[in-house]
Amino acid sequence: MRRKAGMMKRENKTTRIGLIGLGTIGGGLAKLIHRKRSVILKNQKVDLKLKTVCEIDKAKLRGLPLNGVRVTRDAMSLIRDPEIDQVVELIGGLKPAGSFIKAALNHGKDVVSANKALFAQKGKPLYEASMRSGGIIGMEAAVCGGVPVIRGLKNGLVGNQIEYFYGILNGTCNYILTEMSRTGKSYAEALRGAQERGYAEKDPTLDVNGADTAHKLAILARLSFNREVDFESIYREGIEKITPEDIEDAKERGYAIKLIAYARKHKGGCLELRVHPALLGKNHLLANVNGVNNAVLIRGDEVGEVSFYGRGAGERPTAAAVLSDIVDLAVKRKAGIRSSEDLYPKARLMPMDATESRYTMRFMVADRPGVMGALTGVLGRCGVSLSSVRQTENERSPVPVVVMTHRAREGSVRKAVKEIMRRKIVKKRPNVLRVESA
Amino acid sequence: MRRKAGMMKRENKTTRIGLIGLGTIGGGLAKLIHRKRSVILKNQKVDLKLKTVCEIDKAKLRGLPLNGVRVTRDAMSLIRDPEIDQVVELIGGLKPAGSFIKAALNHGKDVVSANKALFAQKGKPLYEASMRSGGIIGMEAAVCGGVPVIRGLKNGLVGNQIEYFYGILNGTCNYILTEMSRTGKSYAEALRGAQERGYAEKDPTLDVNGADTAHKLAILARLSFNREVDFESIYREGIEKITPEDIEDAKERGYAIKLIAYARKHKGGCLELRVHPALLGKNHLLANVNGVNNAVLIRGDEVGEVSFYGRGAGERPTAAAVLSDIVDLAVKRKAGIRSSEDLYPKARLMPMDATESRYTMRFMVADRPGVMGALTGVLGRCGVSLSSVRQTENERSPVPVVVMTHRAREGSVRKAVKEIMRRKIVKKRPNVLRVESA
Repeated sequence: MRRKAGMMKRENKTTRIGLIGLGTIGGGLAKLIHRKRSVILKNQKVDLKLKTVCEIDKAKLRGLPLNGVRVTRDAMSLIRDPEIDQVVELIGGLKPAGSFIKAALNHGKDVVSANKALFAQKGKPLYEASMRSGGIIGMEAAVCGGVPVIRGLKNGLVGNQIEYFYGILNGTCNYILTEMSRTGKSYAEALRGAQERGYAEKDPTLDVNGADTAHKLAILARLSFNREVDFESIYREGIEKITPEDIEDAKERGYAIKLIAYARKHKGGCLELRVHPALLGKNHLLANVNGVNNAVLIRGDEVGEVSFYGRGAGERPTAAAVLSDIVDLAVKRKAGIRSSEDLYPKARLMPMDATESRYTMRFMVADRPGVMGALTGVLGRCGVSLSSVRQTENERSPVPVVVMTHRAREGSVRKAVKEIMRRKIVKKRPNVLRVESA
Repeated sequence: MRRKAGMMKRENKTTRIGLIGLGTIGGGLAKLIHRKRSVILKNQKVDLKLKTVCEIDKAKLRGLPLNGVRVTRDAMSLIRDPEIDQVVELIGGLKPAGSFIKAALNHGKDVVSANKALFAQKGKPLYEASMRSGGIIGMEAAVCGGVPVIRGLKNGLVGNQIEYFYGILNGTCNYILTEMSRTGKSYAEALRGAQERGYAEKDPTLDVNGADTAHKLAILARLSFNREVDFESIYREGIEKITPEDIEDAKERGYAIKLIAYARKHKGGCLELRVHPALLGKNHLLANVNGVNNAVLIRGDEVGEVSFYGRGAGERPTAAAVLSDIVDLAVKRKAGIRSSEDLYPKARLMPMDATESRYTMRFMVADRPGVMGALTGVLGRCGVSLSSVRQTENERSPVPVVVMTHRAREGSVRKAVKEIMRRKIVKKRPNVLRVESA
């Protein structure tokens, strides 16, 4: 009863929002707030008012429900407005997004952002600003779009020590790999198709080279293991070198190829973080995550493995994730809950050579006596033991030999490949792919 | 800054917990709080103290870390203790759990419970008590054990209208069906194996007949559609009649059989709610959810399909889910957030005859001219069109004929089966199974 009285006065207070950036997600958010305001008031008891939007490109205002909303080109005026409770940053990129967020926190605002690159690369000063001011940062939309994985980690798995997680965090790559698998298309063709459908940018580099996935991995690893992660030091391979033959080989043996982010906390506390294409057995939960969808599988010491799945990108899923943060922060502000950000010790990363995995390699081998023996001999001497070797019948030389290894150290595999190349057993460097087990 | 000052005073307040019931989950929770108290204090800034436990069976106290914890046999004394903030009910069943929860709310406590049967069947007076007192009810552990699906629905998908959801909500049934599929065992054998491993109770009725699944469906449907659902009126079939032949037939055509809960809001507002075994294509996300695992797939109008997966039961996952509620409620109490429970209009359920699905049926047919024609003729006249018919070569009569239909009305299928039986085209009632598409 005591609590009731205190709350009554604040119950109907409106949360006033300042939105910076009316691109795809920002425009989608403006429409979403307009569409859902009354249902959110009814169900969540918070009244959201979009007070001001900041956008330089006038064309982007068109068609948006901005009646009664102030429009400005000056982000700082929005940030300084004492009537604004929450600043939503949706311009992306490092600059000036970072200084906007910092300024907003310093002005006592809560902040919502979907800016994974920023938090992965320049997060520390923002967390510090949040700790100083008490303003909360919401970044659910930065990872896996509409899938509430950050909320799941922070609240749902509370009390769990996270042992590992891995997942498919980039919809563009997953779409390309799914298309290659479905149609036999080359990487270049599948990429073109993705661009035509709007699933890949004109310059797709950050998606296909794994950097975007590594951004998200850095954010999730920080939350999972309470360590500051240096994004630059995350091992990373993209999908650009995946060939239709890799996919066909994998398929024939019952595997799908996915770009995965992998994170594990080892005994002693060092973190294994890596982004690369990997083979997943076709009955693996993640093997059937197709198209632009994302999924993460997380193991907590208490709950065991849990997984979250859904659309990783796109206007509506991402805007919905931003909205879930806005509501969450509005509820917390009403209740006087402050930032619970923290700075953590710096993560110690496991050197890539020390990591272990199963591997598959595709060698193009001259079809003459002794070559096969030399190849498998080098692997064996380097401590890489094979679980299967497959040479397809082929009339022309060189012929493909696909090997699958038992669990081996990355360092041993690299050493073996180097030796195989040095001794000219094969002419072309093989594609080395890791195999994740269920 | 203003907010900071107000919070400081409360920051270090301890949340005192009274726990009723030290069975598997309750005992697990006592251990978990003991194990995780300091990490939760550090990360979540709430200090949890298990103040009192109530248990009648002294044997259950053994081996638990109850140093400094008051032990009582009188639940009401625990509930009346003004120093207790949260009451955790883990005795299960309708009585006296319901009156304990009601009394706790009336005494100004927040309540955490994993009691799905209670909330599905007698939830209304508890929600009313929560609305009156402001005490919050946490029931994350009631559905899907350690998988944060209720939190996902309530917070992660905020602003979404839920269009439908379906999932595997009972680990016992999923274990039995997985074993039948993996080994070819009969239902009875697989059930026995589940009992030996502790995955099924001595009396497995509530699990295998679908009642437990329907309890969880009722709870999720209420949260998804904001309607009060009458548990008794949910259509329900269990897994008791599933035969190895059903599973083999499904497998041959690329399907797995799972017990699913299905919920959809139709235009006009009526709800389609049903629990039954169903065929899922082998590439369907849920088809690879095996053993005691659970998964739910939810479609929101904004985010599209999202899915949550993990262990549906067991001491540690369930205790972890209870703990996530305890922390959530402790944070809210510190901030003065009150219950946001609501009572909703009563759900109108779609009559089962009006629902639509694809179906598969296995008829045992006398191997003589005209029978096949008669069978398919009746189906056609009832408006059930077939997508495939398969008759296995067989020396003995009767021979199995397995048909798969296009989308059809349940009423038409029932009418056709009735007519087929009336005309004695087959001797034995066929097993009718629904097919869910991805």
